[in-house]
Order: sequence, then C-alpha cells, then structure tokens
Amino acid sequence: MPRRTPVNARAGAEAVVRVELDALERLCAAALAANRTGAHNAALVARALVAAEADGLAGHGISRVPGYAAQSRSGKVDGFATPSAALAAPAALRVDAAHGFAYPALGLAIERLAPLARAQGLACAGLVRSHHFGAAGYHVERLAEQGLIALLFGNSPKAIAPWGGRTALFGTNPIAFAAPRAQAPPLVVDLSLSKVARGKIMVAAQQGRPIPPDWALDEQGDPTTDAERALRGAMLPIGEAKGAALALMVEILAAAVTGARLGHEASSFFDTEGGPPGVGQLLVALDPEPLSAGAFAERLETLLAQIALEPGARLPGARRLERRAQARREGVDVARERYDELRRLAGE
Amino acid sequence: MPRRTPVNARAGAEAVVRVELDALERLCAAALAANRTGAHNAALVARALVAAEADGLAGHGISRVPGYAAQSRSGKVDGFATPSAALAAPAALRVDAAHGFAYPALGLAIERLAPLARAQGLACAGLVRSHHFGAAGYHVERLAEQGLIALLFGNSPKAIAPWGGRTALFGTNPIAFAAPRAQAPPLVVDLSLSKVARGKIMVAAQQGRPIPPDWALDEQGDPTTDAERALRGAMLPIGEAKGAALALMVEILAAAVTGARLGHEASSFFDTEGGPPGVGQLLVALDPEPLSAGAFAERLETLLAQIALEPGARLPGARRLERRAQARREGVDVARERYDELRRLAGE
Repeated sequence: MPRRTPVNARAGAEAVVRVELDALERLCAAALAANRTGAHNAALVARALVAAEADGLAGHGISRVPGYAAQSRSGKVDGFATPSAALAAPAALRVDAAHGFAYPALGLAIERLAPLARAQGLACAGLVRSHHFGAAGYHVERLAEQGLIALLFGNSPKAIAPWGGRTALFGTNPIAFAAPRAQAPPLVVDLSLSKVARGKIMVAAQQGRPIPPDWALDEQGDPTTDAERALRGAMLPIGEAKGAALALMVEILAAAVTGARLGHEASSFFDTEGGPPGVGQLLVALDPEPLSAGAFAERLETLLAQIALEPGARLPGARRLERRAQARREGVDVARERYDELRRLAGE
Repeated sequence: MPRRTPVNARAGAEAVVRVELDALERLCAAALAANRTGAHNAALVARALVAAEADGLAGHGISRVPGYAAQSRSGKVDGFATPSAALAAPAALRVDAAHGFAYPALGLAIERLAPLARAQGLACAGLVRSHHFGAAGYHVERLAEQGLIALLFGNSPKAIAPWGGRTALFGTNPIAFAAPRAQAPPLVVDLSLSKVARGKIMVAAQQGRPIPPDWALDEQGDPTTDAERALRGAMLPIGEAKGAALALMVEILAAAVTGARLGHEASSFFDTEGGPPGVGQLLVALDPEPLSAGAFAERLETLLAQIALEPGARLPGARRLERRAQARREGVDVARERYDELRRLAGE
C-alpha cells in the first residue's frame, strides 16, 4: 500500500510545493506502483527520475511519471518485467529489458558489468527490448563511482534526418561518458545529438511561440520557425554533417550492434500508441588502472587542473552538481498541479 | 636503396603529374627511408598517406611527407622505432609506439586486437608515446574489413578551448567509427571536433583571405575573421558546448585512460620544434555477432536501406569511396612542385 507522503509543503493554494527528495521518490514510486508496476521496478524508476529532477534535468525528471504510468497501465511497458542478463562472450553481456522500464535493466547491467570490467579490463552490455532511459549520465555515473570509465549509447524514436535528407530516421541518440575522480564526484558528459532538446520545441508549441530557424525542419524538410510543424518534421543535429554522422554511429552502436529496434521502427516514449518501443542501449565499462599503467588519476587531474586555471571555463556537469547539492539540502520545488497529479496517480 | 619511381608522368613543364598509387607509395616510402626511417616503417607510413590521398583527404595525404621526413631527420620522430604490445588485462592491450610514427604502432594494435576482440567479444588497445595518425578512418576500416565494429579516439596538440574559456587546451580530437558490411566496403565515420580543419585556416592565412567569424577565436579569445590571428588562437568546436564536451571526452579517453601526453603538453605534429609529441590513442574493437545474437547484419542493412530511400541523403564516406575507386583506376594528380620535392627527398 502506498503510504501517505510526508512533504514540507507550504499552504495549499501556492503554485509550488517544496518536497524533500526522499519523499518525492516515495510519491513517484507509489504513483507507478498503483499503475501496474512492481514495487521494486517502481522504486528504481522513481530513484532515477528524482535524481534527474534534483540535477535540474526536468525533461527526464518527474514530468515523466504520468506518461510512464499511462504506458504501464496500457501494457505498452510491462511494469512487472524482470530483466535478465547472460554472457554473450567473455567481455560482452546481453541484457534483455523484456519490454519493461529501462532503469531496472540498466541497474542489472551495471551490477554485472562492474566486476566484469575489472576482471577483463573492458566489458560491455547490450540492452534490447528496452525503453526510455532518462538522463544518460545517471547510469554512467554509477559505474564511475566504482572507479570505472563508462560510455553509454542509446537510440530513441526517430527525430533526426540523415545528412542531405528531409525525413527523421535516427533518434536524438544520446552519448554519455563518465570518468572517476579520487577527490570529487565523477566527471559526467551527457548530450543528445540534436541541436536542442525536443522538449524545448514542445514548450514553444504549447505557448504558440516561434523557434529559431536552425533548430528543426518542417514536414517538407525545410527549415521552420513554426514549432508545431517542427514537431511533425525533423530535429537538426549539432555540427551539421558531423552531428548527423554521430547520430548514425549511435544508432548502429545502440540498435544494430545489440539487435534492437531502430529509431524509425520504435514507437513513442511519450504516449500509449503502438507496441513497446523496443529500443537498444550499449553500455561500455573500462578499468583505466591497468590500461594506463597506473597513470590515469594523475593524467585526469592534470587536465582538469589546467581547465580550472582558464577564466570562465566550465566543466560539463558543474551546474548539475550545484543543483544536486541544493536539492539534497532543501528539496525541490514541484508545481502544485504536478504534485496533485502524482498524488492522484498514487491514490492518495 | 630507393629505386627510381616509374610514373605515368606527362610533360615535365605541366603543373600536375598523374601518378599511379603503387608508384606514389614507393616514392613516399623512399622519401622517408632516405630520411632516417626504417624501410618497414616507411612502407607503412607511405601506405596510409597514399590511401588518404586516394580518398581525397589531402590534409592527411602526401602533403605530410616533407614534415614527417624533417621530423625523423631531426629525431623528433624515431623512424627506426619498433612498437611493442603487451596485455594489460584479458581484453586490454597496451601498445608503446616508442616515439616512432603512429602507423606501425596502430598496425600492430590492429593485428593483435582483431583476434582478441573475437575471443573476448570486445577488446581495446591504448597507444602511448604516439604521433599523428593521419586519417582516423583508415585504421578503423582495417578492423571492420575483418568483421569487427571499431572505434578510435585520438588526442592531438592543443587547438580547442574548454567551453567558456579562451585558451586552446584540447586537440581537434578525432573520433572514427567503422562497421562491417557483407556486400560493401565498411561504413566509416571519421570526424574531428573542430568546426573546420585547421588546414583550411592555414590556407586562408597563406592566401591572405578572411575566414568566417564562427571558425576560430583570436589570441585574446574573441571571434576573429583574421586567419593569422586564428592560428595563434583557438579553433571553435562543432555544436558549441556539446562539441567542447566531446573534445574533453576524447582527450580523457585517448590520453588519460592510456597514460599519454595531453593536448596542452604535446608538441606540434607539423614542425621539428620540441621533443616528440607523445600523444595517445584508444582503439576499441567489438564483435557484433555474439552481442546481437546474430542480428547485426540484418539490422545494419535495414537501417542503410532506409537511408537509401531518402532523396538526397548521403552515407558518410560515400564520396571518399568514389574518389578511391577513381584513384585506383587512374592514379592521382600530384602538384609538380610536390612531386619534385618528394623525388628530391628520396634522392632521385
């Protein structure tokens, strides 16, 4: 039974509710568990979404809970799925997410990959029959906390056109990377290959505002400032032909190398239409100690110290860590409407 | 002794000499062998440079021979170095390029990595004390010709500033990727993380032409259209903060993970100033068959067929393969001045 969620809420009429992270995690888990999702799976999904919310990554945060709950209710996601892992080769794991949420499958992959990478020097896990994995950095950070270099490639429903073409074919296809540090949290790089997040175009469409002409193509393949038409068209990649080539590379690594569904075959992560998306992910873990003959930590810190000397230079993820520290101290502000929706979903 | 190079040359007064690829390879090898480089090393360097020339990648082609010869003559590169490889872990090789040319060391890495990746499912080689490796795609293509997925990350002398900063710190840091195809040459992605190749700015400087304002920063860190000042400043990355984050990621993978020199510690690839650059490379090979449970080839061809259906869409490397086919049939045109320089270097 979901228990009532204790929150440090201000007066009911206010537009925003301040919620502690633990309480928010319990609320999100309860919302999922009340919608055809096993308790353990619900807890893992909630932990990842609240971590993204704490990091200020709202697009992969608690805003996803209603859509996830609708998908598990409809059966598009199997909330009771149990992921499984098997060795395909001495340094390669095959992980079946079984059309459940991606987070339990990635959790299993990380659990199995860490000792394998330490034993082999390098190891990977290919995930199939998977789903939206939220903030890609969340998963690689777990491996870097254990002293490993990690890389994650994921494909997603079609959003970016091949270079020279007009029709979306590749996903926004995130790349995430994390490196362990002795005296600091891991350094995390997490980026998608579209120029801007699709969520930014959605917000502009909702507000009836135009978008800059270099964000997206319309359904005819022409640059557009019309957010509605951009949503029916294709996102533009970073770096023109180079970004489109990287999106193709990630599509191959995440879907072809694992045997998963391609971006143009995958159903939406947002609605209950169609069968499960069935996308793929490739997670790679590397032990830098033997490969660098023990030089890794000194080399990394020398580089980061040099960056720190440069006025104005920022490390990727620096703002994310500041937000996280604040969220852990003070909780996060949740829109009253969202908060009430989560409580309704949880049956509170 | 370098033998006289047979060429299909036109009249001596013409500005361009048409040379067959085999003859050009022999000429380049002779030019290096006559300048303190072992015959085997010279042959491997020449083969890679002529392959880049045939592919139309002039910046990594035979234009490099005079600079390479000057560096081996000066001792900045050890032309007689013998690279060595040792297992650092069951799936991780450590390759010492011994301050020689990078091509023999990458050749050794590829030779050892292919069987290791097939046995382990995934394997990597970290190269240290290395040098300019030319067209990154050349090396991954060798692994993909053997049925393997390959990724290569290399760092290079400082060229790109960290995001928000003004001083160059990371190299242009190429990423290369290749995937095997049953009925076609491998699909190859090969890109550097600067918006344009440094060579384009060099050409503009030589010709006294301005450059677009989004290519580079001057020595004060401000955008510039002055090619001379751009060469003293920093190259701008693709995709703004995302490209700078990728350049940092490649710097860590290629140099920190291997224990090599960082971009800001490395001497130039172009001149004889300073000690050897000592940069690093990380080469990863993956056998897609076990990981995809046999689905890889079908998945890749389904994706590429979908791209082929899209009017105007181009696969990365398509133009390169066309140029290569033409160069194999007809040879390549070499500027008379360059040709005479190579013959002089070869002592012909």
